[in-house]
Order: sequence, then structure tokens, then C-alpha cells
Amino acid sequence: MKDAPPEEAELHARVVASFAQQAVMATIGASLRSVMPGAVEIELPYRADLGQQDGFLHAGIVTTIVDSACGYAAYTLMPEGARVLSVEFKVNFLAPAVGDTFIARGKVARAGRTITVCTGEVVALSKDGERAIALMQATMMAVVM
Amino acid sequence: MKDAPPEEAELHARVVASFAQQAVMATIGASLRSVMPGAVEIELPYRADLGQQDGFLHAGIVTTIVDSACGYAAYTLMPEGARVLSVEFKVNFLAPAVGDTFIARGKVARAGRTITVCTGEVVALSKDGERAIALMQATMMAVVM
Amino acid sequence: MKDAPPEEAELHARVVASFAQQAVMATIGASLRSVMPGAVEIELPYRADLGQQDGFLHAGIVTTIVDSACGYAAYTLMPEGARVLSVEFKVNFLAPAVGDTFIARGKVARAGRTITVCTGEVVALSKDGERAIALMQATMMAVVM
Amino acid sequence: MKDAPPEEAELHARVVASFAQQAVMATIGASLRSVMPGAVEIELPYRADLGQQDGFLHAGIVTTIVDSACGYAAYTLMPEGARVLSVEFKVNFLAPAVGDTFIARGKVARAGRTITVCTGEVVALSKDGERAIALMQATMMAVVM
Repeated sequence: MKDAPPEEAELHARVVASFAQQAVMATIGASLRSVMPGAVEIELPYRADLGQQDGFLHAGIVTTIVDSACGYAAYTLMPEGARVLSVEFKVNFLAPAVGDTFIARGKVARAGRTITVCTGEVVALSKDGERAIALMQATMMAVVM
Repeated sequence: MKDAPPEEAELHARVVASFAQQAVMATIGASLRSVMPGAVEIELPYRADLGQQDGFLHAGIVTTIVDSACGYAAYTLMPEGARVLSVEFKVNFLAPAVGDTFIARGKVARAGRTITVCTGEVVALSKDGERAIALMQATMMAVVM
Repeated sequence: MKDAPPEEAELHARVVASFAQQAVMATIGASLRSVMPGAVEIELPYRADLGQQDGFLHAGIVTTIVDSACGYAAYTLMPEGARVLSVEFKVNFLAPAVGDTFIARGKVARAGRTITVCTGEVVALSKDGERAIALMQATMMAVVM
Repeated sequence: MKDAPPEEAELHARVVASFAQQAVMATIGASLRSVMPGAVEIELPYRADLGQQDGFLHAGIVTTIVDSACGYAAYTLMPEGARVLSVEFKVNFLAPAVGDTFIARGKVARAGRTITVCTGEVVALSKDGERAIALMQATMMAVVM
């Protein structure tokens, strides 16, 4: 990121700092993959101890990473000092969460003063390539303290 | 459960067995609290390592327990041998997930042959009592192998 | 309503006045059935010209009445002068929309300063009684001009 | 459509025939704009008698056209003889539904044997150009009679 304009570097730093405080991300082994204005990616290697009864990644864990990806995507477009909260989200599961690594991609569809609408997807990477496993549509809110 | 009619005892055993296979439940410290036909409760004590950036329980973890509560509520009304999958869900967050313990309650709103619709809620328990923090509306599917 | 306390009477009058301005309600033949603080009902007699390809009431029309029921339920708890807007909603369809009359019931689950979360249902009335056909979970926003 | 390959022409004819049976479409003045495998567009000129209290197109009417666009997008990929039903949908409203004409675009995100997941959007056209006003994420089901 060293060649990024100051604004983007600062944006990146803000997201990295907040992400580091989301304790659950370290607990499940997720990491930030990329931060762009209005678009954030989070990566999670498969772990059997995050599975549901068939060994697939649990739908709630799939949701955890794509909620954070959407929340941070919204956050990148919010004024400094604002906090971001999930008002609500909806997730469709397209295929069993089977794979070596999962990438959650959050993107801002419309940024408003109070309400930001995001779309997200989760893909599973395996030796067979990339497969979409979940789609999110989410409402995020900026809370200015 | 020892006085329950055989059917309910068996139902209970089926859910307990499947829940034990949801590895993520042990990972986050969640346990089954009650199993009734069409209604299941899951309990999760607060843990800081499941938090988001403000220390509240992460929305994705709140979702994880209420998704399982709804899924198992649907499962109790499915034919033997069926597996349950989350087709999709939507969650509204009503208040910050602050509390000592969280109870997720899943309930069947309508059980169909293929599709079962559930509603769920999560409440936070603290010394101040019980407070609703999330509402779910979910679509579950029976998959017969 | 003549015995209602002034506050409720005024609330009722506010909703009746706004409802009368929702031109689409007259167009489809819907009417207000009841207004209580945090709970509103709207009624719609079946009309073949509102049907989908099988003659059932179109899902979008089912949604129209339950969105308004939820919106007005939220509105009853908003400060005077506020307008109500639908931020988003999600609807599950439980059964084909077959019946003589449809009743949409909207209820506030949590009223906040900016965001109000509602749940709604639509039931179909026929000679066989009442049958739930749709469930809504919605986010409404107060906009103060 | 006269140069389309027979399959597409037949697909188009199937959708046109079903659309003609959705009585509500004629009632509100909506028409089919385009039919492609997995993607359907519906057009609705603004009419004041479909408005909500501020004169914007009612959220339920916005939903009506994008639900049908998504449903028919799913339908184009279903086996002959199947009917399509909306299992559920979720809509976010991005901006007031103000404009001369509204275009609803439905697209299949994943077609399964029973369940098809679609995404949809509605844009408003006015002298100022095109503006996105709503986003849908929907679950459709094939019912084989």
C-alpha cells in the first residue's frame, strides 16, 4: 500500500485497525484480503471446527465473514469518527460451503448519510476453482458518536 | 426427558446427536437448551473472543446460534432420514449484543414437504433481565438422501 | 373510535389521513381495518385483476398491503411530523394467496429513534376460515422534515 | 425476435403467454421489455394512482414488477411444464421511486433443480437519466405439476 495516495492509505489503516479489534476474526482465523473504497474482501481458510453437521462451513460462519466484508465496505465510505453497525442482512446459500478457502466480498451498492446498502458474496476456492456459495444483501448504519 | 413419550424422546435424541456433530457449536461454546416439536433453543455464554470491534457479540455469531435454532426447529418436524439445509435467512439486529448469556429461539412458522419457514429471535440475559437483540426469518429445506 | 383517549383518536386520524393519500390503496381496493399504537391492519378483498398467472393474488400485491400495514404500525410510534419510509423488507410466502379477503397485520417489534423494526403477516379468509399466507420482517425509517 | 433460434423463440413465447395471464400486470400498466435465458426485464410507466402518500411509486408496486422479473428469469431456465412460485424475497429501497418509467431487471444467480436464486434491481428513468431505486434478492421454486 506504500504508493497509495494518503487518503487511501489512511482508509486502509482505519479498516485494518478496526478489523484487528474484531476479536472473532482472529478466533475463526479470518484475515483482511483487500480494502478499496466501497469494497472489502475477507479470507477464511476452511477449519473443521467451524463446521455444521455435514462438515461444511456453518452458514453462520459464512455469514460472519461476509457481514464483516459488507460492514467494512460501508465503513470505507463513512465520515471519519463514524462507527458502522449492521441493521440487518439477508443471505442466500447457493451451494454447500465446501472448499479450502473462502473469500467474502462486500461492496457498497448505495452509500447514504445514515443508511448504506451493500451486496456481498462468498466464494469457495478449491482445486476445482472458484464457486459462489452465498449471496448477501445488507443494510449498514453509520453511528456518529 | 425421561417421562416424554417415546416419539419426543427420540426426536430429542436425534437433535442432540446432530447438534453434537455441529463442530462450530463446541468451538463457540454453544449448547442445546431445549428441544420441542417445532421449537428449539440454543444458549451461548458471552465470550470476548467472539466480539466485534466494540466488544459486542459479532452479528455473525448471533446469526450462527439462531440459524441453528431455526434449522433444528425445522428438523424436528421433518421425516426421519432427512437432512436440513438453510436455504436463506434474514436477520434484523434490534439492540447491541451485550449480555452475560444469549438465548436463540427458533420456531417453525410453517412446515411444508420441501420448504419450512421459521422465525427466530435472540435475547440477551443480564442482571437487568432479558432483552431482544435479533429477529430472524428463515427458509429451511429438507433434503432426503 | 369516539371513546378513545384524545391521543389515540389523533393517532388514528393521522393514519387515516396518510392512508387516504396512498393512492395505490384505493386503486387496489384496500382499506384500513384497525389502528392501534404499534399495530395496524389493512384489508383487501380478492380481485381477479390483481392475480398472477394461476389466479392467486400476486406476491407483490400481498406485499403492498403488508408493507403499508408495517409502515403505518411504525408511524403510530413516530414523533409528530415524521414521515415513514420503507428501508427494506423480506417476505416469505407460506401458501398460495387464495381467499375471499386478505388481512395484512403489521406490528412494531422495536421502535428506535431512526429505525423501527416491524413484523407483519397476511392471512386469507375464506369459508374454510383463516390461513396465514405470508410473513414479513421489515425495517422502517422515520424521516423528520 | 424473428431471428432468434427456435429454443429462444419458444422460451420467449412461454414467458409472453404466462405474463399475459398475470392479470395484475395489465392492471398496473406493466409490460415485458425483454426475455433472455436467465434474465427478464419488465417496464412500468409512472402512474399517480400507484403512489404512496408522497406520490412516489409504492414500494409494493416496485416489488410487484421486480418479483415478476425475477420469477420469469427463473422460469426461463426451468424445465417445460414447471410452474414458478416465489418462496421469498427481500428488497432494499435505495432512493424514492420517482421517475417517468421504471424498469425491473431480474437475473438468475443460481439455478437449481428445485430452488433458483435471483437478484433483481429496479431503475427509474427520467430526464436526468437512470437511477437505481431498489435491489431484490429472491428465492424461486419450480413446481412440476
